[in-house]
Amino acid sequence: MPFFCYFENEFHPLDAPLLKTNDLGLLRGYALFDYLRTYNGIPFQLKAYWNRFTQSAKSLNLEVPLTYEQVQEVMAQLYRFSGEAEIAYRLLLTGGYAPDGMTSIKPNFMIRAEPLSRENPVSRRNGIKVIPYEYVRDMPLVKTTNYIHAMVMSQTLREQGASDLLFHKEGRVSELTRSNVFIVKNSEIITPDRDVLKGITRQLVIDKASQLFPVHEKSISLSDFLQADEAFTTSTTKGVMPIVKVGEQVIGDGNPGPISKTLQAVLEEVYKNYGK
Amino acid sequence: MPFFCYFENEFHPLDAPLLKTNDLGLLRGYALFDYLRTYNGIPFQLKAYWNRFTQSAKSLNLEVPLTYEQVQEVMAQLYRFSGEAEIAYRLLLTGGYAPDGMTSIKPNFMIRAEPLSRENPVSRRNGIKVIPYEYVRDMPLVKTTNYIHAMVMSQTLREQGASDLLFHKEGRVSELTRSNVFIVKNSEIITPDRDVLKGITRQLVIDKASQLFPVHEKSISLSDFLQADEAFTTSTTKGVMPIVKVGEQVIGDGNPGPISKTLQAVLEEVYKNYGK
Repeated sequence: MPFFCYFENEFHPLDAPLLKTNDLGLLRGYALFDYLRTYNGIPFQLKAYWNRFTQSAKSLNLEVPLTYEQVQEVMAQLYRFSGEAEIAYRLLLTGGYAPDGMTSIKPNFMIRAEPLSRENPVSRRNGIKVIPYEYVRDMPLVKTTNYIHAMVMSQTLREQGASDLLFHKEGRVSELTRSNVFIVKNSEIITPDRDVLKGITRQLVIDKASQLFPVHEKSISLSDFLQADEAFTTSTTKGVMPIVKVGEQVIGDGNPGPISKTLQAVLEEVYKNYGK
Repeated sequence: MPFFCYFENEFHPLDAPLLKTNDLGLLRGYALFDYLRTYNGIPFQLKAYWNRFTQSAKSLNLEVPLTYEQVQEVMAQLYRFSGEAEIAYRLLLTGGYAPDGMTSIKPNFMIRAEPLSRENPVSRRNGIKVIPYEYVRDMPLVKTTNYIHAMVMSQTLREQGASDLLFHKEGRVSELTRSNVFIVKNSEIITPDRDVLKGITRQLVIDKASQLFPVHEKSISLSDFLQADEAFTTSTTKGVMPIVKVGEQVIGDGNPGPISKTLQAVLEEVYKNYGK
């Protein structure tokens, strides 16, 4: 499975040394990215990801050097090279090479084709544990590359058998490190309205769930979260993933709830039929 | 002037493509660095920088793969290659290559020899303008690569003829984006005690200034700062650099004050005689 990385009008093997060490993404965290995948070989909701990516770039005063059409072309080529049925794409835009370690002259833009991350199917069936963590992301609307808390805490997560951190600050829950959160209380679905990345899967779940249940975008306190009937997280790689434990506190009866399972099934159906 | 980058037991030209694009410093901001320079060809206070670097690495659960002695050896070699009288060094440690984009297996460590950044001598004589900016650095004690606010604001700074941002949060001043701050009030010198990077030059100034004036490490409010008799910033590249304007507010009489100038002279003397 030959996966490639597009960079500066060329396709490079995925593990080729490509980047000079004065890239501002590396030296100054001046970078943003997005991550999406194919269903039925087609980049899922590419336009939505692209809009978020270009909006993020604008927020960071970075210009994306390719048009939507050019990116589609590159992605199609990366897909053909891969020979796989389904792949993931990572778009990465940095401040580019800085002769002085600080000044952005011309952004670096790359698109990596990657093997799909293998989510543990047991997690999807049984749900995951998360650990509460007092933090709110800086620039929450922008998909920057700042994941240092998730990285530093990775060993603690492993030790505690947890999958992720649940960010909360001043009593309000925002998100996990790389995915949005929802709770279910009395058959109503609630997801935080602020200090969150506007997830593509989050929006898809809001749209689909609204046809079946009341859905509210509003503040969720940490105690609301702990006392929810159900909780789940949503992301490109996770779809709808039940959260059954927060620290040592069991959510609901400790099993994925009926609404979480319904929404999992709804999303599966969307994915299965995408592009057909 | 051939400057090189040490990486994985080899010396590479400074602008060689070296890094694979799945480095966690690039993808997840999982990286720290330090930056120092030579005086009289000798890395200035290397032990202090090294201690800070290894402490930062520990805070981020990253292991530095070289010993102090090995790093000294590499730095000496980089200096010889350069053929320059004085150079700068950038040490960079990242979470390394992640097959899955998240998991750190083995850190990447590099040491770049760099030409000295050319500070404008006029700035040192006339002082600089900074812009107040509401923010406090995440993990202020750790020299991570997160400088995204400085990067995003760089155009605004240029437009306003300002050199840097003055971080303040909840009424308290902490630091500039890459350097510490001091104020002088009634011949007493004050520098913030918390939410700041413990700068090597900051400590040197505290040590030297204490022999001449009362020096206090304590909280500075934004209004204290604006009403100071003098203000200055300290860093490896800037030494003691007077701050004469915060936004449109003039500090003191708008010129570098006598204590700032005294400390500039004291540091010049230290630098001039280093290693002699």
